Amino acid sequence: MRGILYGVGLGPGDPDLITVKSSRLISEARVIAYPSLSGGESFARSIAADLITTGVEEIVMDVPMSVERGPAQTAYDVGAKQIEAALLSGKNVVCLCEGDPFFYGSFMYIYARLVKNYQIEVVPGVTSITACAARAGTPLAARNERLTVLPGPLPAEELRVRIEGAESVAIMKVGRHLKKIRGVIGELGLTEQAMYIERVSLPDELVCSLKNAPEKAPYFSMIILTKGADPWL
Amino acid sequence: MRGILYGVGLGPGDPDLITVKSSRLISEARVIAYPSLSGGESFARSIAADLITTGVEEIVMDVPMSVERGPAQTAYDVGAKQIEAALLSGKNVVCLCEGDPFFYGSFMYIYARLVKNYQIEVVPGVTSITACAARAGTPLAARNERLTVLPGPLPAEELRVRIEGAESVAIMKVGRHLKKIRGVIGELGLTEQAMYIERVSLPDELVCSLKNAPEKAPYFSMIILTKGADPWL
Repeated sequence: MRGILYGVGLGPGDPDLITVKSSRLISEARVIAYPSLSGGESFARSIAADLITTGVEEIVMDVPMSVERGPAQTAYDVGAKQIEAALLSGKNVVCLCEGDPFFYGSFMYIYARLVKNYQIEVVPGVTSITACAARAGTPLAARNERLTVLPGPLPAEELRVRIEGAESVAIMKVGRHLKKIRGVIGELGLTEQAMYIERVSLPDELVCSLKNAPEKAPYFSMIILTKGADPWL
Repeated sequence: MRGILYGVGLGPGDPDLITVKSSRLISEARVIAYPSLSGGESFARSIAADLITTGVEEIVMDVPMSVERGPAQTAYDVGAKQIEAALLSGKNVVCLCEGDPFFYGSFMYIYARLVKNYQIEVVPGVTSITACAARAGTPLAARNERLTVLPGPLPAEELRVRIEGAESVAIMKVGRHLKKIRGVIGELGLTEQAMYIERVSLPDELVCSLKNAPEKAPYFSMIILTKGADPWL
């Protein structure tokens, strides 16, 4: 009898934003798995820390930060093999995922490797997008409005075209692309409508208008741009 | 001393997908508020039902379903007044919101009316988008991919242009627009990549490929279209 793999979304960082279902799965887990930045700590594990019972078996996927894809994919190969061994021995495995497992999350690499031969249940989580909107006080979309989610590393021209074609835009992973993104938003004359949020829901969260944002942004930062969610018109 | 208004996201329907924070706020609430379709039941209240304590004061906003905006806005005017009265008497009010309060939710109408004069905390929830992706087994976005969220009522040409400009698309509120949307996706040659999900996470949930979807879709239905989230390439 094979075990089941659960990919559980943990939300943006505040343990209070974990769902009841993910909480229960983590508390009852005998085997957990999670990614960590090579040598460093795991953000996913830190969100779930209070729910993890002592003596649980931990599969750590040490994912190197690299522009090349090879090293990270090798880490997922190794992690998938370890998870597979646990599933084959009849144990369930709970894989911890910051945010939502299928929304810019690394869980999809594990999912792709194991979905053909194993039962996998994905438990959705609160994404950083709605968490940032909540903290910034900016409704994302109403009625027939379009919302576009864009990763910050996209080229400036691509960002410009996509920002023009939506009422609301969330730009993820701002980080070292802050200057470029600021430039695009400034050229479009939309700086006044843009909010900047970093490390949402964590103790050191920062929320401010884009024009007051710092010069340097961490990886976990976002810009939310609303041209006028319906009730504000 | 004025009360605080909490807009709490409840997730897509399964009470297990409520966050720990929203659960606690609802359990401890002395006054709750929620929308209901005129005369009918409240979906939001049904998701939270097991958490609502007996004797709690309930503010019901009876929102008529209408293409005209006036009647619904009048309902929000009345609801906001009732919430305001509770806040002025020093009571906190917990407003129940299906999904996420700022993601196509009616809470933003209450927020717009009260944010200037009252303290409001928005608690994000799991959106139907990531819940549908989880159930359909379709990762939404990875790395530098763009995700666009489109409401089904948009004109066909608008849908076509926006679908072309993103790797992943979630089309919300499919309902009576199913035939039109199917046509657009068919013309783009993307039917094979599209999944149809209705009433996600509820006991009568339906998940299938778009080509096998029924002729009629309920309001709470979605199409997820992925042209190739990264790990699948």
